[in-house]
Amino acid sequence: MTPTILMLNGPNLNLLGTRQPEVYGRTTLDDIVADCTRLAGTLGLRLDARQSNHEGVLVDWVQQAREGAAGIVINPGGLSHTSVVLLDALNAFDGPVVEVHLSQIHRREAFRHHSYVSLRADGVIAGLGAEGYAAALRHLAARLA
Amino acid sequence: MTPTILMLNGPNLNLLGTRQPEVYGRTTLDDIVADCTRLAGTLGLRLDARQSNHEGVLVDWVQQAREGAAGIVINPGGLSHTSVVLLDALNAFDGPVVEVHLSQIHRREAFRHHSYVSLRADGVIAGLGAEGYAAALRHLAARLA
Amino acid sequence: MTPTILMLNGPNLNLLGTRQPEVYGRTTLDDIVADCTRLAGTLGLRLDARQSNHEGVLVDWVQQAREGAAGIVINPGGLSHTSVVLLDALNAFDGPVVEVHLSQIHRREAFRHHSYVSLRADGVIAGLGAEGYAAALRHLAARLA
Amino acid sequence: MTPTILMLNGPNLNLLGTRQPEVYGRTTLDDIVADCTRLAGTLGLRLDARQSNHEGVLVDWVQQAREGAAGIVINPGGLSHTSVVLLDALNAFDGPVVEVHLSQIHRREAFRHHSYVSLRADGVIAGLGAEGYAAALRHLAARLA
Amino acid sequence: MTPTILMLNGPNLNLLGTRQPEVYGRTTLDDIVADCTRLAGTLGLRLDARQSNHEGVLVDWVQQAREGAAGIVINPGGLSHTSVVLLDALNAFDGPVVEVHLSQIHRREAFRHHSYVSLRADGVIAGLGAEGYAAALRHLAARLA
Amino acid sequence: MTPTILMLNGPNLNLLGTRQPEVYGRTTLDDIVADCTRLAGTLGLRLDARQSNHEGVLVDWVQQAREGAAGIVINPGGLSHTSVVLLDALNAFDGPVVEVHLSQIHRREAFRHHSYVSLRADGVIAGLGAEGYAAALRHLAARLA
Amino acid sequence: MTPTILMLNGPNLNLLGTRQPEVYGRTTLDDIVADCTRLAGTLGLRLDARQSNHEGVLVDWVQQAREGAAGIVINPGGLSHTSVVLLDALNAFDGPVVEVHLSQIHRREAFRHHSYVSLRADGVIAGLGAEGYAAALRHLAARLA
Amino acid sequence: MTPTILMLNGPNLNLLGTRQPEVYGRTTLDDIVADCTRLAGTLGLRLDARQSNHEGVLVDWVQQAREGAAGIVINPGGLSHTSVVLLDALNAFDGPVVEVHLSQIHRREAFRHHSYVSLRADGVIAGLGAEGYAAALRHLAARLA
Amino acid sequence: MTPTILMLNGPNLNLLGTRQPEVYGRTTLDDIVADCTRLAGTLGLRLDARQSNHEGVLVDWVQQAREGAAGIVINPGGLSHTSVVLLDALNAFDGPVVEVHLSQIHRREAFRHHSYVSLRADGVIAGLGAEGYAAALRHLAARLA
Amino acid sequence: MTPTILMLNGPNLNLLGTRQPEVYGRTTLDDIVADCTRLAGTLGLRLDARQSNHEGVLVDWVQQAREGAAGIVINPGGLSHTSVVLLDALNAFDGPVVEVHLSQIHRREAFRHHSYVSLRADGVIAGLGAEGYAAALRHLAARLA
Amino acid sequence: MTPTILMLNGPNLNLLGTRQPEVYGRTTLDDIVADCTRLAGTLGLRLDARQSNHEGVLVDWVQQAREGAAGIVINPGGLSHTSVVLLDALNAFDGPVVEVHLSQIHRREAFRHHSYVSLRADGVIAGLGAEGYAAALRHLAARLA
Amino acid sequence: MTPTILMLNGPNLNLLGTRQPEVYGRTTLDDIVADCTRLAGTLGLRLDARQSNHEGVLVDWVQQAREGAAGIVINPGGLSHTSVVLLDALNAFDGPVVEVHLSQIHRREAFRHHSYVSLRADGVIAGLGAEGYAAALRHLAARLA
Repeated sequence: MTPTILMLNGPNLNLLGTRQPEVYGRTTLDDIVADCTRLAGTLGLRLDARQSNHEGVLVDWVQQAREGAAGIVINPGGLSHTSVVLLDALNAFDGPVVEVHLSQIHRREAFRHHSYVSLRADGVIAGLGAEGYAAALRHLAARLA
Repeated sequence: MTPTILMLNGPNLNLLGTRQPEVYGRTTLDDIVADCTRLAGTLGLRLDARQSNHEGVLVDWVQQAREGAAGIVINPGGLSHTSVVLLDALNAFDGPVVEVHLSQIHRREAFRHHSYVSLRADGVIAGLGAEGYAAALRHLAARLA
Repeated sequence: MTPTILMLNGPNLNLLGTRQPEVYGRTTLDDIVADCTRLAGTLGLRLDARQSNHEGVLVDWVQQAREGAAGIVINPGGLSHTSVVLLDALNAFDGPVVEVHLSQIHRREAFRHHSYVSLRADGVIAGLGAEGYAAALRHLAARLA
Repeated sequence: MTPTILMLNGPNLNLLGTRQPEVYGRTTLDDIVADCTRLAGTLGLRLDARQSNHEGVLVDWVQQAREGAAGIVINPGGLSHTSVVLLDALNAFDGPVVEVHLSQIHRREAFRHHSYVSLRADGVIAGLGAEGYAAALRHLAARLA
Repeated sequence: MTPTILMLNGPNLNLLGTRQPEVYGRTTLDDIVADCTRLAGTLGLRLDARQSNHEGVLVDWVQQAREGAAGIVINPGGLSHTSVVLLDALNAFDGPVVEVHLSQIHRREAFRHHSYVSLRADGVIAGLGAEGYAAALRHLAARLA
Repeated sequence: MTPTILMLNGPNLNLLGTRQPEVYGRTTLDDIVADCTRLAGTLGLRLDARQSNHEGVLVDWVQQAREGAAGIVINPGGLSHTSVVLLDALNAFDGPVVEVHLSQIHRREAFRHHSYVSLRADGVIAGLGAEGYAAALRHLAARLA
Repeated sequence: MTPTILMLNGPNLNLLGTRQPEVYGRTTLDDIVADCTRLAGTLGLRLDARQSNHEGVLVDWVQQAREGAAGIVINPGGLSHTSVVLLDALNAFDGPVVEVHLSQIHRREAFRHHSYVSLRADGVIAGLGAEGYAAALRHLAARLA
Repeated sequence: MTPTILMLNGPNLNLLGTRQPEVYGRTTLDDIVADCTRLAGTLGLRLDARQSNHEGVLVDWVQQAREGAAGIVINPGGLSHTSVVLLDALNAFDGPVVEVHLSQIHRREAFRHHSYVSLRADGVIAGLGAEGYAAALRHLAARLA
Repeated sequence: MTPTILMLNGPNLNLLGTRQPEVYGRTTLDDIVADCTRLAGTLGLRLDARQSNHEGVLVDWVQQAREGAAGIVINPGGLSHTSVVLLDALNAFDGPVVEVHLSQIHRREAFRHHSYVSLRADGVIAGLGAEGYAAALRHLAARLA
Repeated sequence: MTPTILMLNGPNLNLLGTRQPEVYGRTTLDDIVADCTRLAGTLGLRLDARQSNHEGVLVDWVQQAREGAAGIVINPGGLSHTSVVLLDALNAFDGPVVEVHLSQIHRREAFRHHSYVSLRADGVIAGLGAEGYAAALRHLAARLA
Repeated sequence: MTPTILMLNGPNLNLLGTRQPEVYGRTTLDDIVADCTRLAGTLGLRLDARQSNHEGVLVDWVQQAREGAAGIVINPGGLSHTSVVLLDALNAFDGPVVEVHLSQIHRREAFRHHSYVSLRADGVIAGLGAEGYAAALRHLAARLA
Repeated sequence: MTPTILMLNGPNLNLLGTRQPEVYGRTTLDDIVADCTRLAGTLGLRLDARQSNHEGVLVDWVQQAREGAAGIVINPGGLSHTSVVLLDALNAFDGPVVEVHLSQIHRREAFRHHSYVSLRADGVIAGLGAEGYAAALRHLAARLA
C-alpha cells in the first residue's frame, strides 16, 4: 500500500509568494503542494498537504497522523519557536519527522534560532526554499523504503 | 446547590493511555473523567470535564467558568510553559484553581520547569498520575465546604 | 474612499469592565468600540473592530487586512509576549500598525515587558486606558492623511 | 507487615501554626502528625514522623530509611532550594518519595521556584496546606499496594 | 486655577529636526513646544516646557514640580535607560506622569528597550513622533479633569 | 525590664583574631563579646552572645529568640550567601534584626555580594570591623526605646 | 589640627523628610546635618556637609577632598547603582570612605542591590536611617585616631 | 564549463562509518564521496571533495575556492560551534554555501545547537545522514543553473 | 614527628559501596580508610579519617586541623557545590588541601560542575574512584617532604 | 582653512598625573594637551581641548562640535561604560570620532569592557597611554586629508 | 603484550619549566616524559609521549590511538576550554582517558573552569603538577589490569 | 642592536584588499608590510612580518619570539574571539604586545566584542585600518627606547 506523508504548513505560510518575497520567494504554497504531490508520486508516496494558522488545528492533524500517516514533513512557521504543544503532539507520533524552513532561520533574529520542533525532528532543513520540502520527501521515501 | 468544578485538560491529553505510556501510564482520559465524576459525586460536587487542543477554546471555557463554576482543576499540558493568555483568563476567575500534571515535570526538560499557570494556581500537583486529579478535587471540596 | 482601520483585541479583552477593574477600569469593550467608531467617523476613517481569544483567528484577520484595511490598531493582550505568529502576520501587512495596552505593562511582571508585536509596530501606547485606542486612531488618521 | 512511611519535616516547620499564619495557616505540626497518623492507619501504613532544623540530621534519617521505610513524605522547608546533600541522600533511597510544600512556592520569591529535592521526588505537591501530606500518603499507599 | 503641566525634554532633544531626521523627523523642539502650548490652552492647561542635557538639572526641575505642577510629560532621551536618579525624582512627585519617546524604541538597539522612567510612568507612548506629546497632554487633561 | 539582644555569630567566626587577620583583624570574638556586653549595659540592654558552626543550631537559637529576645544582631558568616533556612527562621522573628559583616563583602568574591539574610534584615553593616556590632546595638537600643 | 570629614549627599536626598516618608522617615537633611555636626565636634572632627543632584558636582567635590578632607561619608542616592564616574573619583581619594544608605536597599528593587561605590567603600551601612551617618562618623573618628 | 563544487569535511569526519555508528551510521566518507561524485556528474557539476582535521587547512581550502569553485558544501564537524575563522573565510567567498550535519545537532548537547558557519550558510541541513550532501548538491545545482 | 593528614568525607559518603554502585563502585568507606591508612604509613604519614553528614561537624574538624594536621584530603560530597562555610574553614587552614571526588563530576548534572572547595584546594581529583584518595596522599607526602 | 579637532576628556581625567599613577602614568592632562597641540599644528589641524566632570557639559560640547569641528577625539573616562546620552550626542555628529583610553580597559574590571561610545566611534585605542591621543590625531588628519 | 598509553600534551606545554614557573614549576616536559616513561615501565605499560601546538595534529594522534593505544593521558592546555573537535576525537576512542592539568584551573580565570575534554574524560586531575601524570598512569594501569 | 618586532597576522588577513573591501579597505597585506617595514626602519626597529591561517603556526611563532623578538604586533583575526591557546602563548612572552584590528570590532557582531588576546595585550587598537599597525609600531618603539 502507498504510504501517506502528512505535509503540514503552519501559520502565515498560506501567504507564500505574496509575503516578503525577498525573504521567501514568489512561489505560492499551491505551487509547492503541486510540485510535492508530483514528486511524492514518483517516490511511491501519497501526499496529504494541509495548512492552518491555528496551533490547535495543527495539533489535531498531527494526532490524526498517528493513524493514517507514515511520516510527517512540517514547516511550523513562527510556531517553531514557541509551541511546546506542537512538540508534544509530534512526540506522540512514531514515524519519521522532517522540519522544513524556507528561509535560513539562523541568519535572522535571535529568537528564530531555537525551535521546539527541532527537539523532536529527525531531520531539519533550512534555507533551501521550496526545495526543502522535496529534500524532506526524498529522505522520508528512503527511510520508509 | 451542588457546586460545579470545571476540569480542563489541555493539548494532547486526549491521547492519554496511548501516548508515551512509560511517562503517562495507560489510563485513558475517559477513565480519569469517569473516576473523577464518581469522586466528585461523593464529595458533593458536580464535574464538568472538557478537553481541547486549542488554547483559544480553553480560554473561552475558563471565561465561562466565571459564571458557572465554583472551582477549576486544570492540566494545561504543554501550554503550561508558554501561555500567558491562559494565565490571564485564570486571573479573571475568582474561585480556587488547582493545576495538575500527570508526570513530574521537574524531572523532565528544563523548559517544563516553569509554568505560567503556577503563577495563579492555589495548588500545584505533579507526578501523582491520574490520582493528581482526585487530590485536586478533594482539595477544592474542602475549600468550598 | 474612506480608509478602513482594523481594530483587533486579543484574548481576554472581551472581559474588559469585569476583569480586574482596579487594573483595567470598568469600561467594557463595547463602550470602547462605540467611542472609537464615533471618533473614527470624525477622523474620516471606518472602524472594523473585532475580538478573539484565538491566536489563529487573529492571524486570519490580520492576513485579511492586507486586502481591506489601511491601518491596524492592535491590543494583543497576553499574546504580545508569546506570539511570533502574530508578529509574522503583521510583518506581512504593509500599512501602519499601532500597538495598544490598557495597563502600563512595564510596571507589571517582568514577562510583560517584552512584546513580539513591538518589534513590528510603528507606535506603542501603554497605560492610557481606553484613551490609548483613541490616540492610536488619531495617529493613523494623521499618517494616512 | 505494615509498611512504614517516614514523614520528614525540615527546618522551621516546627513553628507551624505560629509562624506567618497568613502564609501557612494555624494548624500546628502536632495537629498534622496526629491527622496523618490516623490517615496512615486507615491506609494500612505506619507513620514515622520527625522534624529537625538540622540538615545533617535529616540526611541521617533519610539514610536510616533505607532499612526501615517503604516510602518517604518530605517537606524540606528552605532546604529544598539549597541542599544537594539531601538530594543525594534521597537518591540513595529506593522507595517512592513525595515532596510536600504547604504554601504554593511558585507564587513566592524566585529562589523558591527551584527545588533540588524535586530532581528526585516521584511526586510534588504545593499549596494544598496540611492536606498535601494526606494526598502524599494516599499516593504512597496506592503505589505500595 | 489653570493646572500647570511640566513638559521636560532630556539630553539631545534640543537637536530635534537636525539630528538623524530619518529617525526623528524634521520638526524642531520649538515647533513641538509651540504646538503643545496651543493644545494645552485648548485643554485648559498651562504648559511649562524645558529642555536640558544635564541629568542634574532635570532632577532639579522634577523636584520643583512637586510645588508647581499638576502633571509631568517627560521625554528623558537617552537617560531613560540609565538614570535611577531621574526615576527617584519622579517617585517623589505625586501627580500623573506620561513618558514620551519620539521613535519606537523597541525597534532599536536592545539597550533602549528598558527604561527606568517606565517603572514610574503612568503612561508610555513611543513611535508616534511629535504627536506623542499631544496624546500625553490629552491624557493628563482627562485625568486631571 | 531590660530587653535582651541575641547576638549570633555564625560559622568560623570563633576563629576571629587568628584567621586571615589581614582581612578580619586581630580582635578575638571574646574581646568583641566583652566590649558589646559592656556597651549593651550602657544602652540599657542585656546581651546574649552565642556562636556556632552549625546552621541548625543557629536556626534553633533564632527560633528561641521569639520568646526571649527583643532584637537580634547576626553575623551569619558564610551562611549569609547560602542559607534560606536562616532567612526563614528570621522571617518568623518579629523584632528588629541587624546583619553585621566584619569585612566589606562587596569588595570580595562575587558570591559574597548576595545575602539571603539581607532580604529580612532591617539594617546591614559591612566593613566596620568589630565596631559594626556596636553600631548594631546602638541602632537596636534606639529602635526599642 | 581638627580633621575634616566631607559628608556628601547625592541626588534627591534634599527631599528627605518630604519624599516617601514611609521609606525614608520624616527627618530632614538639615536635621541630619545639624546632628552630625554636633556629633563630629564631640568626636574631634569638623564636618563639611554638601548635597547635590548633579553627578558632576559630586565628582568635583570628591576631587577637592583629596586636598582638604581626611575621610568621606557618602550617600550617593540613586547614583550608587549607575555611576562609574563617582567610583573613579573615590578611587583617587586616599582616605577612608563610608557609604551610607538610609533605607535597606537589599529589600528594594533588584537594581538597587548593586552599588559601584561599594567597590571602593571601606564600610557600607544600610537601613539604619539617619543613624547610619552617625555610625559612619564614629568609624572614621576611630580610624583616623 | 562544468562548475566545480568544493565539498569540505572537517575534523573527525574521516572516521565516518567507524565512529559512533549508532549516531552517524556505517557509511564511510569514501562511500559518500563516491556517491556524491556520481550525483554531481548527473547534475552537471564537478566535485572536489576534501577532508581535514586542521582548521587552518580548511580555511586555506575555502580561500582557494574563491578562484576555482562555484559553490561550497561544508560539514564543519565540531568546528561549527567554535570557529569564527572558518566563518570569516566563508564570508570572503561569494558563491552559495550549504552546511551539512549528518546527525540532528539540535537533539544533542546544547553547545552543538549554535553554529558560526550557519551565520553565513545559505542553507543548513541536519539529520538526513549522507543524504544531506546529496540534497546540498541538488540545491547548488539548481541555484547555479 | 610523623605528620598527620586529616581525611574528611562529607555527607552520604558513609553509604559508599551500597549507594548507586554503578556510579561509585562497591568499595566501602571502611575499605578505603583501611587502604589509605596502610598507604599513609608507607609514606611516613599518620591518617586521621572521619566522616560526617553534618556541615557544622566538618567545619569543626577543619578548624581543629589548624592545630593538629599537616594537610587535608577532603571529599565534601554534595557540600562541594553549596558550602561557602566549608570553603571559609579551609581558607583558615594553612597547609595543603586536596579535594577528591569518586565520580567524574563534570559528566554529571550541571550543578555538580562548580565546587566552592575548589576555590581553595591546591589539587582536585575526580573520577579515579577510591584511588583518588591514594593519589591525594601521595601528593601531600611529596609536598610535605 | 585649518580644520578643528575637538579633544574631549571626561570625568576625573583632570587628575591625570596625580591619580593612580601606576595605572595612568605621571603625565598631566596639561602636558598631553600641550603635546597634542604641537602635533596638531604639524598635522595641519587646530586643537580645541576641553575637560569636564559633567556629562551634560560634555554633551553640550559634542553638540557644538556639529558646527565647529571636523573630528572628535574623546576619552570619556568612566562615562564610556554608562552614558547613552553621550553616545546619542556623538551619533548626531557627522565627522570621524576616535575613542581613547589611557589604560587597557580590557585588563581591568568586567564593567569596563563595554563602552557605549564604542558603538559609535570609528576607531578605538586603549592602553597606549598619552600616545593614544597622538595616534588618534594622526588618524583624523589622514581621514580629513 | 605491553599495552601502550598515549600521553598527549597540547599547546604551550613544550614551554614547561620556562613559562610562568610560579604557576607551572621548573620541571621541563622532557623531565616529565622521562619520569613517566620510567613509571610506565614499572606499571607494565609502554609510553608514547607527544606534544603539539596544533589542534589538528592532536586530533590526528587521538584518531591513531584507536588502533595502537590502550588508554590516553591528555593535558589539552588551553584547548581544554575551546576545542569541541578534540572532544569529538576522544569520543571516538574506546579506551579510558584521563585529563591532567598542571595548575589548579579552578583557581584561575573563569573561562578555565570549563573543559570540553572533561565531558569525555573518565578522570580529571588538576593542580598536582607533574605528579598528575603519574597519578593518571597509575589509574590507567589499574583499569587495564 | 636593532630590536626585532614580530608582526603577526592571523587567519584570512592574507585576503586583505580582496575580502569585503567595504569593511577592510583595498590595501593588501603586502602593502601594509612594505609600509610597516619602512616605518620600522625609521623607528630603529627591524620588522619580522608573518601571516598564517593556522592557530598552531601562530602559537609556534609567538613561542619563537621569546628568543628573538623585543615586541609583538598581532592582528589575530577571528582567533581573537576563540583562542585561549594564543593567549597562553602570549602570556609566556615577556615583551610588550599590541593587538590591532583593522575594523572597529565593537560595531560588528556581539561575538567580536570579546578578545582573549586583549586579556594580555598592553595596547589595543581597532578601526584605524592599516594605520593601526603604524600606531602599534610607534608605541613599541617608544616603550623599547
